[in-house]
Amino acid sequence: MVFDKFHEECGIAGVFGDKDAANLVYLALYALQHRGQEGAGIACSDRRSLRVEKGLGLVADIFKRSILERLSGDIAIGHNRYSTAGENHLKNTQPIVADINLGSVALVHNGNIVNADVLRNELVSDGAIFTSTSDSEIIIHLMAKSNEKNIIDAISKSVQRLKGAFSLIFMTENMMIGLRDPFGFRPLILGRIRSSHVLVSETCALDLIDGEFIREIEPGEMIIITDEGIVSYYPFEKVEIHPCIFEFIYFARPDSRIFNRDVYEIRKAFGRKLAEESPVDADIVIPVPDSGIVATLGYSEYSGIPYEMGLIRNHYVGRTFIEPAQSIRHFGVKLKLNPVKSVIAGKRIVVVDDSIVRGTTSRKIVKMLKEAGAKEVHMRISSPPTKFPCFYGIDTPTRSELIASTHTIEEIRKYITADSLAYLSLEGMLDCVENSSFCHACFSGAYPTLHKDGNGYNPKSEV
Amino acid sequence: MVFDKFHEECGIAGVFGDKDAANLVYLALYALQHRGQEGAGIACSDRRSLRVEKGLGLVADIFKRSILERLSGDIAIGHNRYSTAGENHLKNTQPIVADINLGSVALVHNGNIVNADVLRNELVSDGAIFTSTSDSEIIIHLMAKSNEKNIIDAISKSVQRLKGAFSLIFMTENMMIGLRDPFGFRPLILGRIRSSHVLVSETCALDLIDGEFIREIEPGEMIIITDEGIVSYYPFEKVEIHPCIFEFIYFARPDSRIFNRDVYEIRKAFGRKLAEESPVDADIVIPVPDSGIVATLGYSEYSGIPYEMGLIRNHYVGRTFIEPAQSIRHFGVKLKLNPVKSVIAGKRIVVVDDSIVRGTTSRKIVKMLKEAGAKEVHMRISSPPTKFPCFYGIDTPTRSELIASTHTIEEIRKYITADSLAYLSLEGMLDCVENSSFCHACFSGAYPTLHKDGNGYNPKSEV
Amino acid sequence: MVFDKFHEECGIAGVFGDKDAANLVYLALYALQHRGQEGAGIACSDRRSLRVEKGLGLVADIFKRSILERLSGDIAIGHNRYSTAGENHLKNTQPIVADINLGSVALVHNGNIVNADVLRNELVSDGAIFTSTSDSEIIIHLMAKSNEKNIIDAISKSVQRLKGAFSLIFMTENMMIGLRDPFGFRPLILGRIRSSHVLVSETCALDLIDGEFIREIEPGEMIIITDEGIVSYYPFEKVEIHPCIFEFIYFARPDSRIFNRDVYEIRKAFGRKLAEESPVDADIVIPVPDSGIVATLGYSEYSGIPYEMGLIRNHYVGRTFIEPAQSIRHFGVKLKLNPVKSVIAGKRIVVVDDSIVRGTTSRKIVKMLKEAGAKEVHMRISSPPTKFPCFYGIDTPTRSELIASTHTIEEIRKYITADSLAYLSLEGMLDCVENSSFCHACFSGAYPTLHKDGNGYNPKSEV
Amino acid sequence: MVFDKFHEECGIAGVFGDKDAANLVYLALYALQHRGQEGAGIACSDRRSLRVEKGLGLVADIFKRSILERLSGDIAIGHNRYSTAGENHLKNTQPIVADINLGSVALVHNGNIVNADVLRNELVSDGAIFTSTSDSEIIIHLMAKSNEKNIIDAISKSVQRLKGAFSLIFMTENMMIGLRDPFGFRPLILGRIRSSHVLVSETCALDLIDGEFIREIEPGEMIIITDEGIVSYYPFEKVEIHPCIFEFIYFARPDSRIFNRDVYEIRKAFGRKLAEESPVDADIVIPVPDSGIVATLGYSEYSGIPYEMGLIRNHYVGRTFIEPAQSIRHFGVKLKLNPVKSVIAGKRIVVVDDSIVRGTTSRKIVKMLKEAGAKEVHMRISSPPTKFPCFYGIDTPTRSELIASTHTIEEIRKYITADSLAYLSLEGMLDCVENSSFCHACFSGAYPTLHKDGNGYNPKSEV
Repeated sequence: MVFDKFHEECGIAGVFGDKDAANLVYLALYALQHRGQEGAGIACSDRRSLRVEKGLGLVADIFKRSILERLSGDIAIGHNRYSTAGENHLKNTQPIVADINLGSVALVHNGNIVNADVLRNELVSDGAIFTSTSDSEIIIHLMAKSNEKNIIDAISKSVQRLKGAFSLIFMTENMMIGLRDPFGFRPLILGRIRSSHVLVSETCALDLIDGEFIREIEPGEMIIITDEGIVSYYPFEKVEIHPCIFEFIYFARPDSRIFNRDVYEIRKAFGRKLAEESPVDADIVIPVPDSGIVATLGYSEYSGIPYEMGLIRNHYVGRTFIEPAQSIRHFGVKLKLNPVKSVIAGKRIVVVDDSIVRGTTSRKIVKMLKEAGAKEVHMRISSPPTKFPCFYGIDTPTRSELIASTHTIEEIRKYITADSLAYLSLEGMLDCVENSSFCHACFSGAYPTLHKDGNGYNPKSEV
Repeated sequence: MVFDKFHEECGIAGVFGDKDAANLVYLALYALQHRGQEGAGIACSDRRSLRVEKGLGLVADIFKRSILERLSGDIAIGHNRYSTAGENHLKNTQPIVADINLGSVALVHNGNIVNADVLRNELVSDGAIFTSTSDSEIIIHLMAKSNEKNIIDAISKSVQRLKGAFSLIFMTENMMIGLRDPFGFRPLILGRIRSSHVLVSETCALDLIDGEFIREIEPGEMIIITDEGIVSYYPFEKVEIHPCIFEFIYFARPDSRIFNRDVYEIRKAFGRKLAEESPVDADIVIPVPDSGIVATLGYSEYSGIPYEMGLIRNHYVGRTFIEPAQSIRHFGVKLKLNPVKSVIAGKRIVVVDDSIVRGTTSRKIVKMLKEAGAKEVHMRISSPPTKFPCFYGIDTPTRSELIASTHTIEEIRKYITADSLAYLSLEGMLDCVENSSFCHACFSGAYPTLHKDGNGYNPKSEV
Repeated sequence: MVFDKFHEECGIAGVFGDKDAANLVYLALYALQHRGQEGAGIACSDRRSLRVEKGLGLVADIFKRSILERLSGDIAIGHNRYSTAGENHLKNTQPIVADINLGSVALVHNGNIVNADVLRNELVSDGAIFTSTSDSEIIIHLMAKSNEKNIIDAISKSVQRLKGAFSLIFMTENMMIGLRDPFGFRPLILGRIRSSHVLVSETCALDLIDGEFIREIEPGEMIIITDEGIVSYYPFEKVEIHPCIFEFIYFARPDSRIFNRDVYEIRKAFGRKLAEESPVDADIVIPVPDSGIVATLGYSEYSGIPYEMGLIRNHYVGRTFIEPAQSIRHFGVKLKLNPVKSVIAGKRIVVVDDSIVRGTTSRKIVKMLKEAGAKEVHMRISSPPTKFPCFYGIDTPTRSELIASTHTIEEIRKYITADSLAYLSLEGMLDCVENSSFCHACFSGAYPTLHKDGNGYNPKSEV
Repeated sequence: MVFDKFHEECGIAGVFGDKDAANLVYLALYALQHRGQEGAGIACSDRRSLRVEKGLGLVADIFKRSILERLSGDIAIGHNRYSTAGENHLKNTQPIVADINLGSVALVHNGNIVNADVLRNELVSDGAIFTSTSDSEIIIHLMAKSNEKNIIDAISKSVQRLKGAFSLIFMTENMMIGLRDPFGFRPLILGRIRSSHVLVSETCALDLIDGEFIREIEPGEMIIITDEGIVSYYPFEKVEIHPCIFEFIYFARPDSRIFNRDVYEIRKAFGRKLAEESPVDADIVIPVPDSGIVATLGYSEYSGIPYEMGLIRNHYVGRTFIEPAQSIRHFGVKLKLNPVKSVIAGKRIVVVDDSIVRGTTSRKIVKMLKEAGAKEVHMRISSPPTKFPCFYGIDTPTRSELIASTHTIEEIRKYITADSLAYLSLEGMLDCVENSSFCHACFSGAYPTLHKDGNGYNPKSEV
C-alpha cells in the first residue's frame, strides 16, 4: 500500500452541548458542501462512548434520518472531504476515531501536513500500524506515543511536531477541542447556538443553523470546550500568520466572512482592481458562472461595461455522462455551460474567471463564445497566474500541469485563442486584502514553511 | 384507482436516423432537465421492435452506460417528467409504448388534455382498459379505436378529439412524428444533427448535442419523419394561436429560443418594463436566484440601480433535510438561499422574483433580508399576479392556494412584510412580447379553450 | 414489440376480510417462493381503491415493512413469477391492475393460455392496446369488451374464451374471485384464517399462516367471496379433468397436499415403483438433492439399498458466479452440488433424480461421482422420459432441446456416461396416482386441449 | 468505544502463485459460506502493493466482476465472517491490511484470542491506536512492536504471545504464511491448484476449485509459501493438541475432511452411537434439516427405524420477516421448517438434532410435530448437553442462556414438551472420533487453555 499524498480542501464542523448536536453538524456540513463532495462523516459522543457514521457522496445523500438517529449525544464533529482525482476510499473519510491510552478520541482535519512522510516513517519504524493513507492518522499516533497524562497535553505535544496547514477539531467523550496551525492557513470560526458552542470552517454554516458568530480561532490557538466553559492555550511559538488568499479567490462561499473579511467584498474588489489594471474596450462583461460572478460585478462596476449572464450553467451535472460515438465539440464544458446567443452574437466580450489551471477549459469557453458569434473575446482572470502547487490543503495539479508555470501569458492567450488575456497582479491582489502577510505561494512560490520539491524537502522561505 | 389529474410541464426529445439516437436523446433530456425532475424514459427502435427504459429521478442517474447500450437503433424518443406533489409513480413515466392493431407505437407528451376525463370515460365505457393514470394513455386508445388503416391517419383522427395543450412525439418502428396542438401552447423545435432530424422542447437541447436549429413546428402542424424525408400535415382547423407566455417568465431556460423569440431578451425586457412601471428609490437591486436573475439585470439597466448578488444559492439541495428538534428560522428557504450580509446591511433593496405563488417563500426571503440588516425591502415581480390555475400543462396550485387570487396586492405586501410590492402589468408584459395572442390565462383567466371549473366544464373564452 | 410467449409456473394467493391481508399474502407468497423467483407483487383493496406494489427478485427482498404498510386494506392478492430464460421485465410481473368500465380490477394468474395469440390478435384488431407481453392482460381486455353489466358475468364470459391452463384470482374493491380452468391443470386451494377466506396454490402456504384447509377449488369452478359469504358458479361446460402430474414429480413442495393427494406420499410411491420396475444391484442409493430426496427414500425402502446423502447441496447459490480464466471441471454443477468422497468412493451407486431435461447436468453429476471414486453409477429417474413441451404453464425447453425427444434411453445413458439408466414407466407413474385422467402430455404428447405445433394449432387429443 | 468481544467462527482461504488468485479465493469463500455469512473480504498482491475489497453480506453478493477485476495479482487471501448478534460493522471485516515497519501486511483469522483484553490494554498503554474492535488487530500491533527484522520472525514472536484459537493466513507483497495455534483448535488445509498453493479452512473449498488436497497444516506449524517453495517452522512449544470436536457436530460441511477424518462418517457414527445408547420404540426417525440429516441416517441405520423427511426446510429465508398483527404460532420456526402431515400424523417419531442451545426452537419443533398429529415425539441430540461457552471461536450464548447449563435433562424434556429426550454421552462421542484429545470444553468445561470466568482469568485445565 503506497502512501498516497492527498492535497485536499475540506470543511469541518463541531457542536458541543446540544442534544441535537449531530443534526446541527449535519446541517453545517451541508452548508460547507462546496468545500468537499467526495464523502462525509459525523462522530458523536453520548458521554459514554463515541459513535461514527461515514459515507461516500454528498452530505444530504449519506445522512438519512435513521443514520442521524443513531448519532445520539450532545457533542458531535463532522467532515466534508474534497473529491481528489482517482478513486474514492471510504477508509480515508473522516472523522478518524480511535482508542488510545488516554481513551477514545475523534478527529477532523482541514489542511495538509507537509512533513507527513517523515513523521509517518518515524512512527512506523517505532511500531505504529497505519490503516489509512490519510495524513490525519499521524496526529492520533503522535498523541498515543506522547506519554502525556491527559488529552490536552497529548494534543499540544503532538501538533508541535506538525509542519503545514491544519485546522483541527478533536472530540473525546466529554470535550471538544478546536485548533489552528500557527500560520493560520485555513479558517476556523467559533460560534454559538443557544447555549452551545460551535466550530465551523466558514460563517455560512453558522447562518444556516441560526448560529451566532463569536470570533475566529486565532492562528496557533487551541480552544478547549467542556461543560465548565471555554479555555484557550497557545501551544506554538509565535510566527507571522499566513492565511490562504485562495480562500477569497475561489474556495470560500461569497456569503461567508473569514479571516475577518467579507469574501464577497474582497472578491468584488479583485474584479474592480482587475478592471483598473487591465481595461478593455468592450460591449459587455460576462462571468464564467458561478465562480466568476462576484469579480465580474466588480469589473463591470469599475469599467462601466454592462454585466450580462452570457453563459448559463446547468446545475444537474452528475458524475459521468455518456458521450455519443461521434464526439461533440467542447463536450465537457457544454455539459455545464451554454452561451446565450442573443447576448453574445456580434459583441466584444470580456469574460471573467477566477483562475486558469490547465487552460483546456478556458480554451473551450473562448471557442464556444466565438462560435456563438462573439466579435472579440477578452479573458480576464481575477487572480495572478497560478504557477506553484499548494502544499497546504488545496488540491492542485503538479507544476508541470499548471499552464502558467510553463508558459508566458502571451503563450497562454494564444493557446486559449482569446483576443487578449490579463491576470490580476500580485500587488493588486494584496492591495485588495490590505495585508501582505497572506500566503500567496501558489502565485509567488514563497512558501511560508519548508516545502517539498521533487524527492526531498528544501528550505525556501522558512519563517 | 382514482384517475389523478396531473398538471405537469415536461421536456421531450426525439432523434430519427442516427445510430447514436438513444444517446443523443439522453443528452437532450439532460439539457431539458429543468422541465422535469421526477423521472425520465427513452424508447428506441432498431427497425424491428421497440424497446423502452424508464426510471425515477434525474436523467444522469437513470441512464447508465449499460442501460443506454440496451437501447440500440437509430430512432429514439424521450421524456422528462415534472415532479408533482405526492408520490412518484413509475407507471406514469413516459414514453408510453403499446402494441395496437397498427403495430407498436411509442409516445411522449408535453402538455395537458383538458377533456381527458370525458374521453377516458368514453373509452372505458367502450371496453378500454387503463393501466396508468396519465392523460397520454388516452391518445393511444383513441388511435387503437380509430379504424384507420395507417398510423398517420390514426394520429390525425385521434388528436382532433383532444382539447388542451399537447406537443407530442410519436415513434413507430420506422417513423417519427412530431405534432403541436392548434393553439401552440407548448414549444416544439425541429433541428438537424449531421444527416439526422431532431425534435426538442427547447433550443438549449440542440446546443448541447451540436444540433442545428431548422425551425419550430407550427401550431397545428404534424410533421412525419421517415427514411424518405419530412412531410407536413395540418389535421386541425385553423385557430388563433396561443403560445404560453409563462415559458418566458419562468419555465424555459434563458439560453433557449422558443416561439421565435430569445428567452433571455424577453425576460430582460420584462425587468426593464417593471422598472419603468414601478420605480423605487433604492441602493441596490438583487435577484432571487436563479429564476429572477435576467429580469433583475433588466431592472438594473433601466433604473440604473446597481445589481448585486445579495442572495447566494446552495446548489447541493437534495430531496429531504432533517431539521433539528428545535426549529430553525426560515429553514426551508435557508437550505437554498443565504443573504450576503455585507451587501445587504444598511441598504435599501429591490429584490426581483419571477412570480409569487403562495407567498410563504417571499415572506421568508423578505424577513431574511431584514434580519441581515436591510433598511428597506421592495419586492418586484416580473409578471402579473398569478390568479388562475393553468390547465395546459404547468403544475399550479388550486385557485384557493394562489395568494393573488384571494388577496389584493396591498394585502400581499403586508403578508410578505415588504416595504413595497409591485407586479409587472398584463399590458406591460404583452408589450414586451409584441403580441397579444399569447395565452395569459393564469393572469387573466382568459382561457383559450373550454376549462374546468369545480366539477364540470364551462365555456369561458372558447375560440 | 414482439409477443414473447412465456411458459411459466407461478404461485398465487389471496386473502379476503382480514386487516392484515397484504401481510398474510406476503407470507403465503414466501411459502410459495419455490414456484417462482423472478419477481412478485401484491395488490390490496381498502374498499375505496386498489393499490399495487411489485418488484423483481425474492418476496422477502421486495417487501420491506414500509412497502407492506402502504398496502392497507382487508383484501389482497399476490403472485410469484417463475424465472424464465432471458431478461426479467417488471412490466410482466403481476398482479395486473386496470381500470375498466366495470371499475378497477386486479388479477393474478398461474398457468398458460394456449390460444393467447389468436385472442390477442383479435383484441388488437378491435382496438385494444397491450402494454405487456403477458397472456394475462388478455383476460382483462376480454372483460372490458364483454358488454356485461357486472364483474362476475364479465369474468364468466371472458374465461369461456380461454383455452389452456388457468388458476386465477381476481380482486375488485369489494370482492375476491377464484377460478380454475375446467381441466383443472393447476391447483388452487380454499382455506380459512380466523374469519377470513384464503386462496393459495398449495397447502404449504396455509401452514405458514396458521390457515385451515377447507377444500380445493374444483376444476371449472368459480368462487366469489364477498362480505356476504361464498358463492360458487360453474361457467364452463363439463369436461374430463386433467390435473398436471408434473406438480407431483417436481413442482409442488413435498409438504403440500394438492389434487387431494399428499405430494410426499405420491413422490415416495414413484420411488418405490421405480425400484420395482428397474432394480439394480448396488451398495447405496443417493438423491440429487433436493428434488430427488423423497423418491430416493421410496427407492431405498422398496429395494432395501441403504439411503445416503452422497451429494451435498450448497444453499448460498446466487444469480451469477465469476469463473476463473482457467475453467473448472463441472463448474455450474459444482457450485450447487459436491460429492461426499467417503460415501461414494468404491461404491456401486444408484442416483435418483426427478427428471432429465437436456442431459448436460446429469452428465456432469455422473462424471463428478465417478471422479469421487464411484465404482458404478446407475441413474434412475422418478418420471417417464420428458419428450414434449408443456403448454400449460411449466417452463420447458423446445422439443429439440429435450434430450428424450430426440434420443433413445440407451443413447442418453451413453451421453451421461452412466452404467445404467432407467425411467419410471408411464403406466407405473399413473398407477401411483391411481387415476389415469392426469395430464401427462409432457411424457405422452397427449395434450388435453388444442396445442400449438410449429406455426399453427392442430387438434390432437381434444377432449 | 467499548471493546466488544466477538466469539465467531469464520472461513479463511489463500492462494499463492496463480494469476486468478482473487477469483479462486472468491470461490473458496463461496464454498466456505456456511462458516460465516455476515461479511467477506479479499486482499490481493500484485507484487508491488496490496489491495483489499470488503463488504457486508454473502460472498456472491459482495464480489461482482468489476470488484474482482480490481483485485489483480497472483497472491490473495480472504475471509468469511460469522454473523454475531447485534450490528454488523464493516470495520471488523477482514482481511486486516496495514502498513508497518516491515512493509504492508494482510491477515485473516479464524478463531478467538482469549487473552485479547490483556494484550490490547498493554498495547494501548504503549501507544498503540485501535481502529476496530477485532481481536485480530492485536496481532498486527504485536508484529509492529516486535523489533524483529523480518516478517517471519515478527510473526513467530507475536503469535507466541497469543492464548486461544487461531488459524491464520498472512500475506505480504511476496509471501503467504499459514499458521495454526499449538492446540490446533481450528482446521487449516494445504492444497494445490495446478502449480499454485492453496490454504483453506475445509476441503470442500478445494473440491469446488479443482484443488488437490496435500495435507493439513499441523497444530503449531507455520508454513511459509514463497516463489522459492514451502518451508515450515514450529514457533511454539509442543503441547497436546485439542482440535474442536464441535466442527464435526455442526460447523464443518459434511462433504469436508478435517482433522484427518471425514465429517460425514463421524457425524453418522454419532447417530449410530446415539441409537445404541438411547434407543426408542418408534415408527420413524426424522432429522431437523439440514444440520441433523447425517446423524439421523446413522440413527436409522443402527436402530432399523425408517428414515423420513418429516420436516421440510424453506431455503429462501431472508434476514427479516414481517409478522402480521395477530401473531402466528411458532412463527420463527415455521418460516424455516414445515412438517409433512402425511408422514407425521399418527406416528411415534424420533427427531434428531445436532444440539440444543436455548431450547426455544426445540420446543417449537416438538409442538409443531404434535399439532401435525404425531402420537409421540422423542428428541435425540447427537452431542452431549452444551453446558459451557466456547472461548475458541464459536459464537455461543453466555452460560446462563445455555439451557443445559442450568437445567437437568428431565427439566429440558419437560420444557420442550417431548415424550423423551436423550443426548449422546461424552464417552460415546469420544469413542466415535477414537481420540480423547479433542477439545470438548463446551460439554465438559475442560478448557485446554486459561479461560475467562466472570471478570478475570482462572487456570482450569492449563496444558
